[in-house]
Amino acid sequence: MVHYKLTYFLSRGLADVSRQLFHLAGVEFEDERLNRDQFLERKDTFPFKQVPVLTVDGLEIPQSMAIARYLARKFGFSGATPEEQAMVDAFVDQFKDFYSEIHDYFYAKLGINQLDGDEQKTKVLIPARDKFLALLVSFLKKSKSGFLVDSGLTFADLIIIDNMTTLINWQPEYADGYPEILAWRDRVMNYPKLKEWIEKRPVTMA
Amino acid sequence: MVHYKLTYFLSRGLADVSRQLFHLAGVEFEDERLNRDQFLERKDTFPFKQVPVLTVDGLEIPQSMAIARYLARKFGFSGATPEEQAMVDAFVDQFKDFYSEIHDYFYAKLGINQLDGDEQKTKVLIPARDKFLALLVSFLKKSKSGFLVDSGLTFADLIIIDNMTTLINWQPEYADGYPEILAWRDRVMNYPKLKEWIEKRPVTMA
Repeated sequence: MVHYKLTYFLSRGLADVSRQLFHLAGVEFEDERLNRDQFLERKDTFPFKQVPVLTVDGLEIPQSMAIARYLARKFGFSGATPEEQAMVDAFVDQFKDFYSEIHDYFYAKLGINQLDGDEQKTKVLIPARDKFLALLVSFLKKSKSGFLVDSGLTFADLIIIDNMTTLINWQPEYADGYPEILAWRDRVMNYPKLKEWIEKRPVTMA
Repeated sequence: MVHYKLTYFLSRGLADVSRQLFHLAGVEFEDERLNRDQFLERKDTFPFKQVPVLTVDGLEIPQSMAIARYLARKFGFSGATPEEQAMVDAFVDQFKDFYSEIHDYFYAKLGINQLDGDEQKTKVLIPARDKFLALLVSFLKKSKSGFLVDSGLTFADLIIIDNMTTLINWQPEYADGYPEILAWRDRVMNYPKLKEWIEKRPVTMA
């Protein structure tokens, strides 16, 4: 049997989606969580000097989206056809662009930069949200499954919704003007095996 | 036969890697290039309101990396095994992070923001370069193929090298302290069918 180890911080952050994929697939994995000191001690040993890292029988794979895509393809959560997989990848990259756009807000809330969170909310979060959520709504309205692509739940839904959980923890009104987004979020978070994991995972703000 | 159309600006930018993949595979495609006005006229009709867009028999796929990955998987330039494909995806995402880090420099050189290119070179380009190229060197030194992964050329090599062509156009000394990077760049650019395309493609700075 393949031995999987996922190494990350204590938070959900960039790794919980991969943990979710293991739970959805019912596949065992070692859920290794490092505190800041443990990370710094091992930093230089990681392939890209960062986490998450997925270790598959000794091979270390870095980068959160690459890890999630690898598991999603293996476990059947990456889209049904090459064309649908390309659309799923497009949503993931669009999310990555959104995440870059809100970087100053996100890092202010995490206490990593010295900027003012409220100021960054107005300056970067709200404009980025309005653009990103409107785009997602246009796809959700056409979807046959209620998820981003017609064949059902994929890692693109998981990535965007898990990040939204953090944004809603910080700004409870975040998606209030977007009923289709809130309905989609409920659909994802109530997906049977995912709901189970959400109920038992450690509760963290981010 | 599948009809492919790739829609982008006149530049290499975020789309030439997909053009390169068509040439490497010997597959015909419609190379649609828009000027600024033509883009603005059609902007709202594109799925994510941006280009590149790949149209595959009527289905429109957005996001440059998603398009490149789709073509690379189809044409055999995405890695040989699921694990190698994950590593290729990790390099691509690491590049995307690098590209975000140098955003202020890149957009200054393109004339899209009002920042000073020389100042941004010192502030963001050089530190990001030193980190990114050192990481790539550590993999190139171990590679059996001379490319980023052991099985040979992939779209990760193409994406990073094509972007580096732009950086070298702007800063000819960009990779001078990195002999392994320069050797790798030669290897990619002299890859037979790629060399052919590089010689015949429209010459643009970016």
